[in-house]
Amino acid sequence: MTLDPTRHPDWQLAQEAESHMKPILTLAAEMGLESSEILPYGHYMGKIEQQAVLQRLADKPDGLYIDVTAITPTPLGEGKSTTTIGLVQGLARRGLRSSAAIRQPSGGPTMGMKGSAAGGGLSQCIPLAPYSLNFTGDIHAVGAAHNLAMTALTSRMQHERNYDDATLERLSGMRRLNIDPTRVNTGWVVDFCAQALRHVVIGIEGEGRRNDGFMMRSHFDITVASEVMSILSVARDLRDLRQRMGRMVLALDRDGKPVTTADLQVDGAMTAWLVEAVKPNLIQTMEGQPVLVHTGPFGNIALGQSSVIADRVGLKLSEAHVTESGFAAEMGYEKFWNLKCRYSGLTPDAAVLVATVRALKYHGGAPQLRPGQPLPEAYTHEDLALVEAGCVNLLHHLGIVRRSGVPAVVCLNRFHTDTQAELDTVRRICEKAGARVAVSDHWARGGEGALELADAVLDACRTDRRAFRPLYDWNLPLRERIVRIAREVYGADGVDFEPLAAQRLAALQERPDAAELGVCMVKTQYSLSDDPSRRGVPASWRLHVRDALLFGGAGLVVPVAGDISLMPGTGSRPGFRNIDVDVETGQVSGLF
Amino acid sequence: MTLDPTRHPDWQLAQEAESHMKPILTLAAEMGLESSEILPYGHYMGKIEQQAVLQRLADKPDGLYIDVTAITPTPLGEGKSTTTIGLVQGLARRGLRSSAAIRQPSGGPTMGMKGSAAGGGLSQCIPLAPYSLNFTGDIHAVGAAHNLAMTALTSRMQHERNYDDATLERLSGMRRLNIDPTRVNTGWVVDFCAQALRHVVIGIEGEGRRNDGFMMRSHFDITVASEVMSILSVARDLRDLRQRMGRMVLALDRDGKPVTTADLQVDGAMTAWLVEAVKPNLIQTMEGQPVLVHTGPFGNIALGQSSVIADRVGLKLSEAHVTESGFAAEMGYEKFWNLKCRYSGLTPDAAVLVATVRALKYHGGAPQLRPGQPLPEAYTHEDLALVEAGCVNLLHHLGIVRRSGVPAVVCLNRFHTDTQAELDTVRRICEKAGARVAVSDHWARGGEGALELADAVLDACRTDRRAFRPLYDWNLPLRERIVRIAREVYGADGVDFEPLAAQRLAALQERPDAAELGVCMVKTQYSLSDDPSRRGVPASWRLHVRDALLFGGAGLVVPVAGDISLMPGTGSRPGFRNIDVDVETGQVSGLF
Repeated sequence: MTLDPTRHPDWQLAQEAESHMKPILTLAAEMGLESSEILPYGHYMGKIEQQAVLQRLADKPDGLYIDVTAITPTPLGEGKSTTTIGLVQGLARRGLRSSAAIRQPSGGPTMGMKGSAAGGGLSQCIPLAPYSLNFTGDIHAVGAAHNLAMTALTSRMQHERNYDDATLERLSGMRRLNIDPTRVNTGWVVDFCAQALRHVVIGIEGEGRRNDGFMMRSHFDITVASEVMSILSVARDLRDLRQRMGRMVLALDRDGKPVTTADLQVDGAMTAWLVEAVKPNLIQTMEGQPVLVHTGPFGNIALGQSSVIADRVGLKLSEAHVTESGFAAEMGYEKFWNLKCRYSGLTPDAAVLVATVRALKYHGGAPQLRPGQPLPEAYTHEDLALVEAGCVNLLHHLGIVRRSGVPAVVCLNRFHTDTQAELDTVRRICEKAGARVAVSDHWARGGEGALELADAVLDACRTDRRAFRPLYDWNLPLRERIVRIAREVYGADGVDFEPLAAQRLAALQERPDAAELGVCMVKTQYSLSDDPSRRGVPASWRLHVRDALLFGGAGLVVPVAGDISLMPGTGSRPGFRNIDVDVETGQVSGLF
Repeated sequence: MTLDPTRHPDWQLAQEAESHMKPILTLAAEMGLESSEILPYGHYMGKIEQQAVLQRLADKPDGLYIDVTAITPTPLGEGKSTTTIGLVQGLARRGLRSSAAIRQPSGGPTMGMKGSAAGGGLSQCIPLAPYSLNFTGDIHAVGAAHNLAMTALTSRMQHERNYDDATLERLSGMRRLNIDPTRVNTGWVVDFCAQALRHVVIGIEGEGRRNDGFMMRSHFDITVASEVMSILSVARDLRDLRQRMGRMVLALDRDGKPVTTADLQVDGAMTAWLVEAVKPNLIQTMEGQPVLVHTGPFGNIALGQSSVIADRVGLKLSEAHVTESGFAAEMGYEKFWNLKCRYSGLTPDAAVLVATVRALKYHGGAPQLRPGQPLPEAYTHEDLALVEAGCVNLLHHLGIVRRSGVPAVVCLNRFHTDTQAELDTVRRICEKAGARVAVSDHWARGGEGALELADAVLDACRTDRRAFRPLYDWNLPLRERIVRIAREVYGADGVDFEPLAAQRLAALQERPDAAELGVCMVKTQYSLSDDPSRRGVPASWRLHVRDALLFGGAGLVVPVAGDISLMPGTGSRPGFRNIDVDVETGQVSGLF
């Protein structure tokens, strides 16, 4: 690379790396894919025929399985994706066939504020623009399947209003579903931050108009928050996906019974829209290692990690496969550990806990940070006391990983403003706690900067004791599982269930499949507690569970212990204003 | 083929043909594309790098250019796409390198009722399921670009309400646009027939909530009706697309001035979502000829034909290129003749006018037809009087094509219930009018059945006099152009403009670019008149123009002379209920 990452935006660095990318067929062949197992999408992207690969390599042992998680982040983020890519580049320099698995970014944050979710600096995946925009169409396909279900539901409600039983049955060939318009919980989806669609009224009737829908309140979520996306991320294969697709509960009927996608006979067609989306996508790091990009479930409500399928495939094809869990360890790693590993049947060999001096200072009491505003001085000048005070947060997250029985490596993701004394302080505290630590410079130097991290991870995989064990038995009642998570992972004193939550959990507990339902928490990622303003390791607090949702297709019960916004907003200075296209080359500029 | 088209649904015939499809790279090489000019999307679909192709072949003479249009259809459709594919298969059997250009179908009709739009019988394009569903993502990309513009507009309205001028300018870096909430004419899009979204209220406010949008009426159209789709269909290249993308008028400000996508600084980002969609898609006929699929503008409001780019590329690559115009000749062919050819700079060598005995009987006075209902007996038994009476409609459409100076060939698209005497009747009447006629059996027999048609078309191209001339000069005032179309194409006695239409046309006429704006009519396709119940050739009627819309990006003035529904509805027995997926192979069944 000739460009300097401290002086050029990510998209310019990516464009330079793209000028010498490997063609997708070369990349696939290097990974050991047969030519029938790769579906090219243009010259540099592809989809993997996962069913064929998993069948062919059924007897091949899996590679090393490494999860990347983080301490509680500041509002600016601490570089988990960057570390994931950097680590893969570092492992490759140590001679291992390595791959990453990351999520596909949503158009909402990409256009709104966040820009690329492809990593940063010299640790990004490429080609950047297609990855950040339409890519191979998976999010679009998820949106289509979801909105098709809503089209089926709302048109059915119209027809059931318009016809008596006999006419309805004769015209439609289906008995009345008797959908209760006051209990339609599912909304529509669009993959932008369109706050104007958060609360809407649809099907507005006029005098005598009977064919413009059924008037009711409704809402739009961002597409990545769709249960369809969640299903795609947990499905083991197309068969599993097909079955789950029929179990989505869109509403209740007037007797309180669920009205599912199967009841509407729309589940087969929904699956038809997803036949390609079930195949993981393949692109590459800036240094030419495979990156599997698959699904983008919204961390706020779903697992917030890339798919079970992508990890299964990556482990068969690589000697080391690095996957990323969204949010901090008490949220993302907890779901990886107790949900994703259960769905996949896989167990990790090591976990990387990403920390930054910036975030440690934040937890140590430095001033508030806001995206787009200049950093307060505490963050740009040496302050050992703040760093030291903030390490409590790191040590708590380290304890979470250890509780799972998985070897941990702390990765200090280095910024150019960090001083040696600050880095040494963190190292000393971690080593005193018996933890492996690596300072990593992959943002500025790519794989070369990640060698210490790669070595520490390999060492942990090869020599540390490993005794992976779930936090709880799924036969435990749902409420007890929530209490275990709150006390043993978050560090709460206990859990308060509001009446609505208690009642819904009790009803869910009565279901014959209660022991098959996963508990997928909703809570802020900006604190270990349920109050985003509390930094470090909050003490003397109880988790407050307000509600519990059921996602029947994904097989998840979602206890809600925080504000749940499934439709972010677009601010007054949105990122899309910087984006443009070179009309000669088609290259996209301004994604940062 | 071993399957009998009279006994198997289209999707089964397609699956059989798919078992011996050409790989996309083979197909591309046979067309003379260089390997860098084809972007594969899987093994059997691809996108063509049109800018490279058009540059490389700038000096190569174009192939023969043939448009397919039709007489006024019955509600069941008369097989224009089928004829387009069949003709290409027939031309190939006569040794010509031939290609087709068709539109990508919308998910709405595909899921709702119509099923595949890929042709039918042994004249279809394949692979059928991906073509009918997500395909290469173009419609999704159009929807994303459109909804991004609406996100920009509605979030801006929220911020302009919330802040005073100074704060707004400081926070957003943009001056107040002063959008008039009562004059936001653009809605959102979704690509299904979701009648529940026809009339909505968005941005519903609660006590003190200032961040949930701006409360107003809004609506959703089907994605293919988006102006973005219209722009994509008329753009000559990426540069042209980029310029047009900034000229979309989303609303008016409080002074009545247009608020454009450029004013919102969202036009660059919208174009970024369309960088791949501007490249035409390539698939194949059941007999292995190239089919360019590009854009799917809704006939009800836009040109209703595949893109200018696809035809430019097809003509460079083929000895004969067949393109299809939506609706009947007075709508689709008129727009091809006076709009698409102007945008493309191309002129056709011949036009095929598709007729069926069924439609002729319909125009001759046979009973009404309804999709999904059994055919009345008049249609399944010989009735020469009805056929003869209906030929007036055919002769009128023939006159339209002749008026454009283009050689015409009448194609009798044969059904297995047609009798020889019925076919002979039509042939006699057409030949008496000096028209070429071919009876074509491509639905039942593929290219072999289209040889008579192929020969007639080649003969027309090579020997008939050709004097292509537009119907009117674009310097004529908009109103006069409308009158010319109504009188000379539709056969109306004149035009009545309602006050709203008159006022809007007068205002548009004042624009300095009035002579650059195309007139794109909205009218029913089920009659030559503006009353869909009037069959044959209606006499003594005046066209009633109620409104006139401006699509600034597409450069079109749209006079509205009929009901304009941009969001169809889903009926009580929707097609999606038949669709499913084989979980072993991923094959989609039930698209018919």
